[in-house]
Amino acid sequence: MALWDGRFGEGPARAMLEFSESLGTDMAMWQEDVRASVAHVVMLGEVGILTSAEAEEIVAGLGKVADELAAGWRPGIEHEDIHMAIEARLGEHVGELAGKLHTARSRNDQVATDVRLWLRRRMLLLDEAVAELMARLLDRVERDGHALVPGFTHLQRGQPIRLGHHLLAHVWHLSRDRERLRDTLHRVNRSPLGAAAMAGTPHPIDRSRTAELLQFEAVLENAMDAVSARDHVLEATADCAILMAHLSRLAEELVLWSTREFGWITLSDSWSTGSSIMPQKRNPDAPELVRGKAGRVFGDLQALLAIVKGLPLAYNRDLQEDRTALFDAVTTTLACVRVLAGCIESMAIHPTVDLRGDLSLATELADFLVTKGVPFREAHRVAGGLVKSVEGDPRGLAALTADDLRQAHPKLDASALAWLDPEKAVERRSSRGGTAWDEVLRQVGLLRASLR
Amino acid sequence: MALWDGRFGEGPARAMLEFSESLGTDMAMWQEDVRASVAHVVMLGEVGILTSAEAEEIVAGLGKVADELAAGWRPGIEHEDIHMAIEARLGEHVGELAGKLHTARSRNDQVATDVRLWLRRRMLLLDEAVAELMARLLDRVERDGHALVPGFTHLQRGQPIRLGHHLLAHVWHLSRDRERLRDTLHRVNRSPLGAAAMAGTPHPIDRSRTAELLQFEAVLENAMDAVSARDHVLEATADCAILMAHLSRLAEELVLWSTREFGWITLSDSWSTGSSIMPQKRNPDAPELVRGKAGRVFGDLQALLAIVKGLPLAYNRDLQEDRTALFDAVTTTLACVRVLAGCIESMAIHPTVDLRGDLSLATELADFLVTKGVPFREAHRVAGGLVKSVEGDPRGLAALTADDLRQAHPKLDASALAWLDPEKAVERRSSRGGTAWDEVLRQVGLLRASLR
Amino acid sequence: MALWDGRFGEGPARAMLEFSESLGTDMAMWQEDVRASVAHVVMLGEVGILTSAEAEEIVAGLGKVADELAAGWRPGIEHEDIHMAIEARLGEHVGELAGKLHTARSRNDQVATDVRLWLRRRMLLLDEAVAELMARLLDRVERDGHALVPGFTHLQRGQPIRLGHHLLAHVWHLSRDRERLRDTLHRVNRSPLGAAAMAGTPHPIDRSRTAELLQFEAVLENAMDAVSARDHVLEATADCAILMAHLSRLAEELVLWSTREFGWITLSDSWSTGSSIMPQKRNPDAPELVRGKAGRVFGDLQALLAIVKGLPLAYNRDLQEDRTALFDAVTTTLACVRVLAGCIESMAIHPTVDLRGDLSLATELADFLVTKGVPFREAHRVAGGLVKSVEGDPRGLAALTADDLRQAHPKLDASALAWLDPEKAVERRSSRGGTAWDEVLRQVGLLRASLR
Amino acid sequence: MALWDGRFGEGPARAMLEFSESLGTDMAMWQEDVRASVAHVVMLGEVGILTSAEAEEIVAGLGKVADELAAGWRPGIEHEDIHMAIEARLGEHVGELAGKLHTARSRNDQVATDVRLWLRRRMLLLDEAVAELMARLLDRVERDGHALVPGFTHLQRGQPIRLGHHLLAHVWHLSRDRERLRDTLHRVNRSPLGAAAMAGTPHPIDRSRTAELLQFEAVLENAMDAVSARDHVLEATADCAILMAHLSRLAEELVLWSTREFGWITLSDSWSTGSSIMPQKRNPDAPELVRGKAGRVFGDLQALLAIVKGLPLAYNRDLQEDRTALFDAVTTTLACVRVLAGCIESMAIHPTVDLRGDLSLATELADFLVTKGVPFREAHRVAGGLVKSVEGDPRGLAALTADDLRQAHPKLDASALAWLDPEKAVERRSSRGGTAWDEVLRQVGLLRASLR
Repeated sequence: MALWDGRFGEGPARAMLEFSESLGTDMAMWQEDVRASVAHVVMLGEVGILTSAEAEEIVAGLGKVADELAAGWRPGIEHEDIHMAIEARLGEHVGELAGKLHTARSRNDQVATDVRLWLRRRMLLLDEAVAELMARLLDRVERDGHALVPGFTHLQRGQPIRLGHHLLAHVWHLSRDRERLRDTLHRVNRSPLGAAAMAGTPHPIDRSRTAELLQFEAVLENAMDAVSARDHVLEATADCAILMAHLSRLAEELVLWSTREFGWITLSDSWSTGSSIMPQKRNPDAPELVRGKAGRVFGDLQALLAIVKGLPLAYNRDLQEDRTALFDAVTTTLACVRVLAGCIESMAIHPTVDLRGDLSLATELADFLVTKGVPFREAHRVAGGLVKSVEGDPRGLAALTADDLRQAHPKLDASALAWLDPEKAVERRSSRGGTAWDEVLRQVGLLRASLR
Repeated sequence: MALWDGRFGEGPARAMLEFSESLGTDMAMWQEDVRASVAHVVMLGEVGILTSAEAEEIVAGLGKVADELAAGWRPGIEHEDIHMAIEARLGEHVGELAGKLHTARSRNDQVATDVRLWLRRRMLLLDEAVAELMARLLDRVERDGHALVPGFTHLQRGQPIRLGHHLLAHVWHLSRDRERLRDTLHRVNRSPLGAAAMAGTPHPIDRSRTAELLQFEAVLENAMDAVSARDHVLEATADCAILMAHLSRLAEELVLWSTREFGWITLSDSWSTGSSIMPQKRNPDAPELVRGKAGRVFGDLQALLAIVKGLPLAYNRDLQEDRTALFDAVTTTLACVRVLAGCIESMAIHPTVDLRGDLSLATELADFLVTKGVPFREAHRVAGGLVKSVEGDPRGLAALTADDLRQAHPKLDASALAWLDPEKAVERRSSRGGTAWDEVLRQVGLLRASLR
Repeated sequence: MALWDGRFGEGPARAMLEFSESLGTDMAMWQEDVRASVAHVVMLGEVGILTSAEAEEIVAGLGKVADELAAGWRPGIEHEDIHMAIEARLGEHVGELAGKLHTARSRNDQVATDVRLWLRRRMLLLDEAVAELMARLLDRVERDGHALVPGFTHLQRGQPIRLGHHLLAHVWHLSRDRERLRDTLHRVNRSPLGAAAMAGTPHPIDRSRTAELLQFEAVLENAMDAVSARDHVLEATADCAILMAHLSRLAEELVLWSTREFGWITLSDSWSTGSSIMPQKRNPDAPELVRGKAGRVFGDLQALLAIVKGLPLAYNRDLQEDRTALFDAVTTTLACVRVLAGCIESMAIHPTVDLRGDLSLATELADFLVTKGVPFREAHRVAGGLVKSVEGDPRGLAALTADDLRQAHPKLDASALAWLDPEKAVERRSSRGGTAWDEVLRQVGLLRASLR
Repeated sequence: MALWDGRFGEGPARAMLEFSESLGTDMAMWQEDVRASVAHVVMLGEVGILTSAEAEEIVAGLGKVADELAAGWRPGIEHEDIHMAIEARLGEHVGELAGKLHTARSRNDQVATDVRLWLRRRMLLLDEAVAELMARLLDRVERDGHALVPGFTHLQRGQPIRLGHHLLAHVWHLSRDRERLRDTLHRVNRSPLGAAAMAGTPHPIDRSRTAELLQFEAVLENAMDAVSARDHVLEATADCAILMAHLSRLAEELVLWSTREFGWITLSDSWSTGSSIMPQKRNPDAPELVRGKAGRVFGDLQALLAIVKGLPLAYNRDLQEDRTALFDAVTTTLACVRVLAGCIESMAIHPTVDLRGDLSLATELADFLVTKGVPFREAHRVAGGLVKSVEGDPRGLAALTADDLRQAHPKLDASALAWLDPEKAVERRSSRGGTAWDEVLRQVGLLRASLR
């Protein structure tokens, strides 16, 4: 029996029921719904809107429903949503007293409360998972980060760097994702309970008390805001989208690095799959899926923005769709973080790329000249000319002689040749944030501290 | 046993299996998968790659699997996707012969084929559903379309129109959606089967034959194109997004028109719901959900575009995500079209809005002056001045006297007062596409013909 | 002369120059570019990489260039971007010494620094503008907020509320936008300067010093992160998108409220426009444009996410596009906030909607019964039945007699009739966050305090 | 003097003027606006609404305005949009007769007409540009397409293919983009002129005649549809987005192939740029920008969808934003197509990748076994085992002896070794759409024919 039976004549068509039901999505929130109802009833009992006995009986009944749900009981589609289903089930346990559960409450504030509780828990899990991924990356920085690799811009070799320097950039990206999640959490963790439909209630409820019972940081001060606000949903999804953008960049690099052409890493068999037709393949499915799922989460964010756009207050049914997108974004992101942590932990990293003579050392010559007082632009031009002179020579810059240097610029003496050693080139970049090993280790320390 | 067991040592981790499986989505394609496999095997038998007996046995086995699936059998997650699941099940029926099913085929062309078959069927259903919605709207145009209502721009009353004129605009929108679906269908309905992984096959297959068996219009001529192309997926989803944009505009109007403030229509109880706290509410849930789901489908399109962007050929696992978004977009859109048809058919349309004296008749005065040779811009200014003179008067333009008109402009004689009759104003707009009733009926005729 | 002339033979084609130049966008950052260069050169002078005299001469030269730019001088397209243009112009003032400006710096960290400075300034302006809009709304709450209007859910009348209660919901939305902007600002306001291309530099620079000179809160600790990070760009744009979602909701309501059908407000002529054909129109162009521009900013966010997705580190030219989207999002949002403040301040708000007997009072009957101990669900059903009994009666619930009530439920005595007074209904909702006037004023106090 | 001066008291604020003006965008349509006005006036003269003399004078005046615009005259912001600016300028040439130009027309149908004319012209240019890009790719297929390269799935080497086979996949992608553009063009090329504001007009206009003069294929039959429809804008932008998705995939490959690690191509200097700090860099800026601009066009599409969503008919000012996004999408896409054509034409393609012994030949062994009657799944397993046995051996499959093969499977005799020759492997894939050279050439023929 649907809730509108008091007035409607014919009842909603079955097709409408199927179109509008949200049980498939809402089911994920049953624990939060029970928890919020318990807090509500406890408060109703404390302020005298229900008697203590009534409150206790309803709380006990809700406990039974929770046990049943935990044991696998699932309501049918006729209940429209999880909230109605739980109340109906409660009625089977406590009779018409169940009709008092919804006193001084509306589905609007009820759903808003459940979603915030659901989201709070998942954001904490996400924060933990990101910390774990950071830790796995830091492990690899310490274990394999000393290796020399070309640093890229435009996917062209730019300058030699330590692999750890590169991996650390991803860790710093993630560290800001955690900052964002925590900032957002403060806006998620506020209580709409007690707002009722949008106007508050004539009953003497205590909203601070339910907020306290549910461990909310604050009470949303305006009832219409409490039920119409979706900025916390948008913001949490935007956090996920930004995090997924970061993961997609790391995933892209894992895909590139595991090609035959780059050959820097081999993903473990656990995080790869084979091919139905090509038996030699070890496909980087896990990072590819992460990269693809970034697009999915971006789509969730765009869906939410488009859904919310131009909606008058307070509540419109369009907003039911917000959970589909939010839940998908958060659970997808969580899975991706965990999967990448597995990939990072288990992949093999291969020995150093041989960068002797590599054209990516050309900047060293320019920097050498700068130390001799040559303006950078001129130094850059000189180094460019030398690169051009060895193009096509497989030895690269290793083909240059002291004579070549001198002819290119009078201040480019033989000592500049020593600057072309890749190890030295890297260690010379010891400015704050540079690729020298001590700088790498200093950052590992900072980041480890942030994880504690 | 996963397909890559021949080489991989440890096998994929359970977490990876869960992360990468697509059974939940693929399941929707089991019929297409069986059908495409049957066509493939029939062809293999005809060209002699399989013996007739082998082909017949496999076809029979596939039939059994199909029967089991139809009867409710569902494979477990260890099968990764529906394609592997069906082949494995086939093996339980026909033994190692099942291993020949995949001859001269790859999962790449197999999946590409299944998706195109799935999509073709749903696009045809969508085309039918849109035609049905158009028919229901045309019914209302004929039945209720003579009513006078204000036509809006900027949601401000602009000019009196027939309701049918307004409803017809939506029908024309939808008629172009059908054009689009049909254009797209030609690009969807081409066969990738036989492309194998991306390079074709050394076996003497007959791709025309499988295309014929599966009723494809054409064969995709390049194997790498066949497995890497996703433009048909993007295009079909874009069609859905555009259609949903149209539905959202119609839905918005149903919401507006069913407010107390507009009061033009009452949605039937079947397509409304009540409120948990406010017993008088008859909420336009169905159109609100349609409007919200438009955002969802836009998100699906953006997800797909982002997923495809920058992917090197031929296949990357990111593309597995395409089905999640495509299937969601198409099935959501189909449901929305059907639900709106129900709303349109069953809603009550209330009598004509009283437009006597309404300021939306001001254009009539300007047009009157134009017929007297006054330049439009001057006529417009004169009419504007008259509107200003009656602002605040509840009678509106009905407060104007012949004297008022004459003072406003010498050519604005008493006969202009007759132009202010809303019925006449509407009938005067009999230019092609205008709001006069004959024009409305002419268009109904054109549109009915397009539905036949 | 382009910078790559040292090596390239033919130089870039004109078409490429046009395709790749970003002067049109970058021009907005010239002040930031000069400022960052000055800080860089001051530091180079302090640490001895340049002599004091060199540093002073370059700083003076940059001052001249800044004066020229402020006076309207604009570089030509041959300069590719504003950074090269300024350096080239500096060369015309100080000769080859200009070639030392770029010492220990790359365009990567230079551009990253400029963008952060640009963004920091605009976010502060945006924060101010939002505060101003909140203040204008609070003014209207105090001046006009006592008026009774129906509160809507599903755009159906739900319960009577004070207009101020409704407007406050928007103010609370905006208050969280300011929180978000400030949280983001901490992540924007970190210094990438000194990261060079991605690997740091061999020269003994002092990154803390440039950070201090530019009033950055912190130094980005990893050079590759410093030049590859775009999460601050994504986050700031997401903040704008969420803010625009809020503005679009307010704008939608202004459009609705200014219709003839609602008639709650009249926008001032300053923020409306007329029609070229319909002289009586006063179109709510300003809020409509705000609503439309919300879509534009959503598009900017989606563009940015798609651009960043899957990009390998450190820098790729794709990222040049980030400024087009970011600058558009931020400046569009700022303009919309200001325009809405103008609309809010200048609009006329009309007297109270007459809600006597309005069906939106039905909840009062249910709440009355709840105070008599009747379970809410039963009370809701009773009230629903009473609504049904008066449907079609123009008096609405005012048609109910004491007898009608008693027949509906034994506990629904004559005193319940008094509960149907809209003023009393509103004042009864004095729970925290409810629509009673004292609650409205309490929130105004809280929000005013947040603006100080 | 703005058009609403007849009624409004104070006139719009300067801020509103700046916020709402669209001259910057509309300016691009001045030719279309003049052309459409000329057609309108010619028709007005023909049907007698204007006298022949009036019509001729206005047409002549419009010609003068056009000449002035062509010569560089630009209207000021006070004109709000290009349409008002041209009419005002006309007034300076022909006096108050200019006030008759707008007879039986509204800005709604005027703008709708201009946009369709603008879009039609650019879509034709886009179609040509795509054809040109296809031709340049086909040139490279013929010139360089015989080269052997690994075909990738998951960016892992899958099977040896001809480079031409791979390039052709892109050409086929593009061929469908042209189909889409042409399908869309039929929906763009319909005339809204004469719809007036939304209701038609009382004046005896001839809409077929203006359609004919403007070379429209058809007349939009419903006036409200004519001014409210934006599906052609959405569809054209979706076409651009899909085309950009294709270009981004080609661009990604150009970036990858031009890395030191792949080394397949070298972009010409004309389409690359250097680095401000690293003198050896030749950056693939052109394809990177194309890839980035794909995100931009996706953003335009999302903006448009969000803008149109939920808009009631007929016209709302939100829609002014449609041109910003549409124009940007179309002009960006056009530029990208042309730039890629330049890259493709001028890049150097390097000799064949050495694939002897490459693991991507493993499928050959499986296919060999299939020809011996071994079920594919078993053959796949056998080949997988052989791959595993040579992992780590730099010779790859070339390390296998006849003995190794026989031990792996009794039917794998010595003749299988010959199957491992890459050239033969490629030529064996001569099934329709396969990578054999004759198949490549056959497709070149088909595609060349489509360009004629």
